[in-house]
Amino acid sequence: MTNSIEITKAKTSKIQDVDFENLSFGKIFTDHMFTCDFKNGEWQKPEITPYAPLTLDPSARVFHYGQAVFEGMKAYKDDAGKIWLFRPEDNLARINKSAERLAMPAFPHDLFMEGLKKLINIDEDWVKPGFGNSLYIRPFVIATEPAIAASPALEYKFLIICSPAQSYYSGDVRVLVAEQFSRSANGGVGFAKAAGNYAAQFYPTSLANQEGFQQIIWTDADTHEYLEEAGTMNVFFRINDTLITAPTSERILDGITRKSIIQIAKDADINVEIRPIKVSEIVEASKNGSLKEIFGSGTAAVVSPISAFSHKGELFEVPKQDDKYSDKFKNLLNGIQYNTLEDPYGWRQSI
Amino acid sequence: MTNSIEITKAKTSKIQDVDFENLSFGKIFTDHMFTCDFKNGEWQKPEITPYAPLTLDPSARVFHYGQAVFEGMKAYKDDAGKIWLFRPEDNLARINKSAERLAMPAFPHDLFMEGLKKLINIDEDWVKPGFGNSLYIRPFVIATEPAIAASPALEYKFLIICSPAQSYYSGDVRVLVAEQFSRSANGGVGFAKAAGNYAAQFYPTSLANQEGFQQIIWTDADTHEYLEEAGTMNVFFRINDTLITAPTSERILDGITRKSIIQIAKDADINVEIRPIKVSEIVEASKNGSLKEIFGSGTAAVVSPISAFSHKGELFEVPKQDDKYSDKFKNLLNGIQYNTLEDPYGWRQSI
Ligand SMILES: Cc1ncc(COP(=O)(O)O)c(C=O)c1O
Ligand SMILES: Cc1ncc(COP(=O)(O)O)c(C=O)c1O
Repeated sequence: MTNSIEITKAKTSKIQDVDFENLSFGKIFTDHMFTCDFKNGEWQKPEITPYAPLTLDPSARVFHYGQAVFEGMKAYKDDAGKIWLFRPEDNLARINKSAERLAMPAFPHDLFMEGLKKLINIDEDWVKPGFGNSLYIRPFVIATEPAIAASPALEYKFLIICSPAQSYYSGDVRVLVAEQFSRSANGGVGFAKAAGNYAAQFYPTSLANQEGFQQIIWTDADTHEYLEEAGTMNVFFRINDTLITAPTSERILDGITRKSIIQIAKDADINVEIRPIKVSEIVEASKNGSLKEIFGSGTAAVVSPISAFSHKGELFEVPKQDDKYSDKFKNLLNGIQYNTLEDPYGWRQSI
Repeated sequence: MTNSIEITKAKTSKIQDVDFENLSFGKIFTDHMFTCDFKNGEWQKPEITPYAPLTLDPSARVFHYGQAVFEGMKAYKDDAGKIWLFRPEDNLARINKSAERLAMPAFPHDLFMEGLKKLINIDEDWVKPGFGNSLYIRPFVIATEPAIAASPALEYKFLIICSPAQSYYSGDVRVLVAEQFSRSANGGVGFAKAAGNYAAQFYPTSLANQEGFQQIIWTDADTHEYLEEAGTMNVFFRINDTLITAPTSERILDGITRKSIIQIAKDADINVEIRPIKVSEIVEASKNGSLKEIFGSGTAAVVSPISAFSHKGELFEVPKQDDKYSDKFKNLLNGIQYNTLEDPYGWRQSI
């Protein structure tokens, strides 16, 4: 890829219309976007242009066959005004892994890093400093070829769009353990950030919402006996002082927050077990008082403590805990992300 | 729905540029399309307009979460120039069932039937008479709301686009029985025509293509011991004179061609068994000579005879058969579809 990025700046900025104190997630986008088309077997001229609607033929493959993958990442501003990314190369590696499973072309490393950084630089005023404030970054790839044959498209569009985000107090997160519906199959696409995986969760999640649960913890589709992950979070359990999380697999997304937490926990001499987790084990631990914490991990909220789970109609409360692992991990990760702590891992990358 | 359909005709037709003798599937579309937006909790003004690109925000849910469902149906012209649909209400029922599973709103019956018929009437010259010629009709619904929260959209677009189709001689169809990859999970969305189900098959199918197989017959994700369906076809096996097909389930699409064939077969006093089918049973039947036919069923080709299947590296040829069930069903269904035979079932509907 020798093409350099062609930049067209927006004539005016929308930023003065934005209430940065009252952002709802993913509704407002910055002034620019990065796009690059794939055609004739290669990625074409990359561009940064004003954020604008896409024009696509109604027969574009993405509308019919869900041939689309995405990523979610964030940029953080420190108090000196410097902007940081967190393990961005891992997002690139993952979107390319997702793309491969959906028969889509990989996006080149250097072009991704350059496009990402240039785009954020141009829209740097949209990244607000302060713990919790961030720029949510959404790289995604869609199949644009105008033809409805049920086969991989020959044309794609890679985009990066950005949305300012605030830390949100999500309240008590109560989860339902899946007993009937499931998220992914062995040999399927669960490990990929494939667009269709998400729409498939909307209906079961709506039903859970109606019963007062914010999220579902998915279980294996065969037996519903093993805990896997939540809709957009991996899940950790603390039994006594041991931290347990399910191994990644072809059904489970290899979360970047998850693997960062595993690393941090190990380095803090916390006993970490990465192994299949039976629902019955957690129920048992809840009953005998050894279940200390449950929390989800993901880019959106870093960690989301879970206060209760329901299984087969029975509700299990997770007792309040003073010295929470989840707080420790959140503080450490935020410290690295916002450049207030040392980063012994080299996870932070300046723009 | 009291809104009547607003019709804007194309100024010129593209039809004279189309080579109807050399159509490749799904690349050329007729002059008009039907669209209807969902907003503020209801379907808005339906329109028939010139076929044209869609303008969507890059944050539209369909691009990120695959919240999209579709249908595939056909219109047939008889020698008197009259146009017929085949069980169109079943397609509507199915798209609404798919929509429900993806937390999308149902589309109203009367508006669907009226929009469909008006659209085909306007583009009637695109429907060519003669067995094999047809108008492929693609109703679909996409989530258009410009916001990337991972939850059901509040805005949708329903569309119908149409593409002239020819009968294609697909050659020998050889299939691979899935041993590693899978199409759908218990409790998942396999029974729905959910966009994401299709992209998920592209990569495994490409691998199969490279080994010389046109399609995959999917097996259950747990054991890979039971035969389910192909990518866009249900599958039938004939052992001696018994016709066997898997029961529909939450993993398998309830094909309209499949259920029509079952009905026709029963009425022809063919012994039909609708039950789980073990791969080992078909392998055994192939070895002892009782396997007479395998064929796929679907709107695209009605029936597609399968000449060989591969399982665990072993290739099983299906012997040539003189009095093929598949020919019988194809002729009967085509006769009903093209109005050359009686339709005792009331499946045919004129426009
Ligand atoms: C299904 C799923 N699991 C887990 C995660 C958490 O991954 P990460 O920590 O990389 O954000 C996400 C969100 O990206 C997800 O979509
Ligand atoms: C997965 C799948 N199975 C089977 C079929 C066949 O269904 P029908 O006979 O209604 O076209 C289709 C195509 O519509 C399909 O997509």
